[in-house]
Amino acid sequence: MQSRMNKLISLLNQHRLSGVALNPGPTLTYLTGLHFHLMERPTVLLITATGGLALVLPELEAGKLAGLPLDIKHFTYSDDPETRPAAFSRAAESLNLPGDDLGVEANRMRYLELSYLGDALPEVGFTDASACLAELRMIKDDSELASMRQAAEIAQTALLATLARLQAGMTEKAVANRLIIQLLEAGSNPGLPFAPIVSFGENSANPHGVPTDRQLQPGDLLLVDWGANCDGYLSDITRTFTFGEVDPEQLAVGEIVRQANQAGRSAGGPGVEAGVVDRAARAVIASAGYGQAFIHRTGHGLGLEAHEAPYIYEASNLALMPGMTFTVEPGIYLPGKGGIRIEDDVVVTDNGLESLTDLPRAVLPLEGFLGG
Amino acid sequence: MQSRMNKLISLLNQHRLSGVALNPGPTLTYLTGLHFHLMERPTVLLITATGGLALVLPELEAGKLAGLPLDIKHFTYSDDPETRPAAFSRAAESLNLPGDDLGVEANRMRYLELSYLGDALPEVGFTDASACLAELRMIKDDSELASMRQAAEIAQTALLATLARLQAGMTEKAVANRLIIQLLEAGSNPGLPFAPIVSFGENSANPHGVPTDRQLQPGDLLLVDWGANCDGYLSDITRTFTFGEVDPEQLAVGEIVRQANQAGRSAGGPGVEAGVVDRAARAVIASAGYGQAFIHRTGHGLGLEAHEAPYIYEASNLALMPGMTFTVEPGIYLPGKGGIRIEDDVVVTDNGLESLTDLPRAVLPLEGFLGG
Repeated sequence: MQSRMNKLISLLNQHRLSGVALNPGPTLTYLTGLHFHLMERPTVLLITATGGLALVLPELEAGKLAGLPLDIKHFTYSDDPETRPAAFSRAAESLNLPGDDLGVEANRMRYLELSYLGDALPEVGFTDASACLAELRMIKDDSELASMRQAAEIAQTALLATLARLQAGMTEKAVANRLIIQLLEAGSNPGLPFAPIVSFGENSANPHGVPTDRQLQPGDLLLVDWGANCDGYLSDITRTFTFGEVDPEQLAVGEIVRQANQAGRSAGGPGVEAGVVDRAARAVIASAGYGQAFIHRTGHGLGLEAHEAPYIYEASNLALMPGMTFTVEPGIYLPGKGGIRIEDDVVVTDNGLESLTDLPRAVLPLEGFLGG
Repeated sequence: MQSRMNKLISLLNQHRLSGVALNPGPTLTYLTGLHFHLMERPTVLLITATGGLALVLPELEAGKLAGLPLDIKHFTYSDDPETRPAAFSRAAESLNLPGDDLGVEANRMRYLELSYLGDALPEVGFTDASACLAELRMIKDDSELASMRQAAEIAQTALLATLARLQAGMTEKAVANRLIIQLLEAGSNPGLPFAPIVSFGENSANPHGVPTDRQLQPGDLLLVDWGANCDGYLSDITRTFTFGEVDPEQLAVGEIVRQANQAGRSAGGPGVEAGVVDRAARAVIASAGYGQAFIHRTGHGLGLEAHEAPYIYEASNLALMPGMTFTVEPGIYLPGKGGIRIEDDVVVTDNGLESLTDLPRAVLPLEGFLGG
C-alpha cells in the first residue's frame, strides 16, 4: 500500500501536479484498500505531491478507517448537507496546497465534489490527471495477474455451465440471468464488470445490446459478452455461436472475425504501439470487404475497471509494456442480420501477448456445448 | 415520454435554467428510454428550455436511437478521442443556446463531460440542477409505484429463500452471494440497487459493511440490507435477526429500533416536513439513551436510484407530497458489539405513509426462518 502511494507521489512530481483529488472508485481503492459508495454523499481523498493525505467523508463511514496502514487525516460531515463545506475547508487547510493545478480522474470526478473542492480551494484549478493515474495502474504485478487469470477462469466455467442448459425458446434476459447466477456459483465477486450481454439473431448487430425478451430460435447467431470479478480484478470475454442452420454468410463472417482476433493477438508485444494491434485486426476485416462493419476500436485496457488504459484504437501511439492487460475484440456488425465479436483478454509478456482466455474462438454450433 | 419531456421543459423555465446537460443515468433513461454505459466515452443529451434536443454519443451506440419517439438530433464521434470535440461543437451549434447557466446533475456529471461541454460552449456556465430534476422524478405515478411494489415483493421472497438455507459456519460473503442468486431467481433485473450487505456479530456495527469471510456463529446478530430491481425501480430493505442466544442488551436495542421505525412511519404524511419523520424516529432512540449511536439520517428517497430525493434528515424542511417514496431506516450501532437497523420502503398517500415492505420488523431469532 505504501509503495503504491510512493509511486503515485513520484508520478505527481513527474507530471508537475501539486496533488490529486480522488473520489470513490478503483484508484482510491488501489491506493488505500478502502471501499466507498459513489452516491450522493461526497467522499474525496486529497493527496499532495509532498505526501500529505486528507480524506473528507460522511461521519457514518469513518469506522472504515480503523486499522488503515496509512497516515490519513480525516474530516467528517453529518447528514445535513450544510455541514459539508466546513469539512472540505478543514481538509484543504490541513494540507497547505500551493495554488497550482490539482489533478482529478476525468471519468470519475463529479460536479458534486468539484463544487465543494472549488469553494474550499478557490485559488486551485483542476486538470485531468488520467494519464498520470493510468501510469500508476496500467502495469499489473504478479498478484494482480493471478487475480485476472482467476477472473477469466471463473467466467469461462460459468459460460460453459450456462450453455449446457440452453434451449430454443429461452429469452435473452433469461439466459443473461442464468449466466449471472453461474458466475456467482463459480466464485465471482458480486461486483460484475457489467451486466452480461446476451443477443440473439439480428439483435447481435448492436454491440452494446441490452438483453430483451427475444427468444432463441433455429437460424440464430448467439452472442455473449460477459465477465467475472476476482478480488476486484475483471475479465471481459465475448464468444459467438450458431444455433441451428444459419445463413452461410454468417459462417464466413465468423471466420474473418476469428482471423482478425488472431491477427490482433499476434501483432502486439513489448514496445509495439497499441495502434499496431488495432490496425492488424482491422486490416483482416477491411481486406475481406467488411471494414465499414467493424464499428469500434479493437480493444481496451482491463483490470480494476472494465474499460481503462491502454485503449487499443487505430491512432494510438502508446507503446505497450510487459504487464499491461487489455482486450482484443474485433467484430463485424450487419444491421438486420446480426453481429459477430470474438473477444479475448491478453497480457503483454516479454515477447508478445499471452491470452488469459482460451475458450474455442471459432464460431461453432451451440449444439456442441449443450449438455446431453 | 413526451409528457415527461414537457414537464422538464416547464421546470427548466420555472427554475430559470436555459437548459440541462444529462449524461448516462436514471434521468436520461426516464426522459428517453435510452440506456448508455457511464464509462470512458462521453455521452451527453442537451435539452434546452425551448425544447431543443441534441445528443452527443459514440458512433457504435447510434443504433440505439432507432424507433425513438422523440425528435433528437444526434452527433457521433469515433474511437479516436480527438474526434470528440467536433461532435460536441456541432451539438452546441445546433441548439443556439443563450449564454445563461446550463444545469447539470451534480451526482452524475463528470469532469470528462464538463470539459468537452466547456470547450464547446465557452460562454456558458454550469449550475447544479438537482433541485429541478428532483421535482421531475420525485412523485411516482401508478405505474412506477407498481414496479416499486414488485421490487419490494421480489426482495422479500429472495430473503426468505436465503434464510431458509442458512447454517452456522457460513460466511457473510457466501450468504450475500446466495441472496443475489435468490434475487435473480425471484425475478429481479440484474441491475441490483447495490451489492447486498450481510453482516454478522460485531461487523454489523458498520452501517455500510462489505461482506467478509466472517462465519456465522451462535450469539451473533445477523444484519441484511438488500434490494431488488423491477423495470429499473428499486427496493431497499434491512432486517436484523439473532442467531442463538445473544446479549440481552441486543434484544432491548432491537425493540427500541423497531419502535423508532414505527414512529418514523407514523409521523409522515402529505404536507409534513421530511425532518419531522427523522425527528420522530430519532426521539425514540435518544430518549432510550442511544442517541449518539444512531449515526445517520432516518432515510432517503428511492425509485430509479437507490438514493435520491427526498432525503429524510433532521434539518430538512421539504414538504412531503403524495407519491413520494423513501426509506425509513433507523439504526443503533455499538462498536465492538454490533448494530441493528430496520428499514422499510414507504410511499406518501393522501393520509399518511404506506409501507411497500411488510416482512416482520421485530428482531427475531433466525431459527424461526430456517427451513426444516
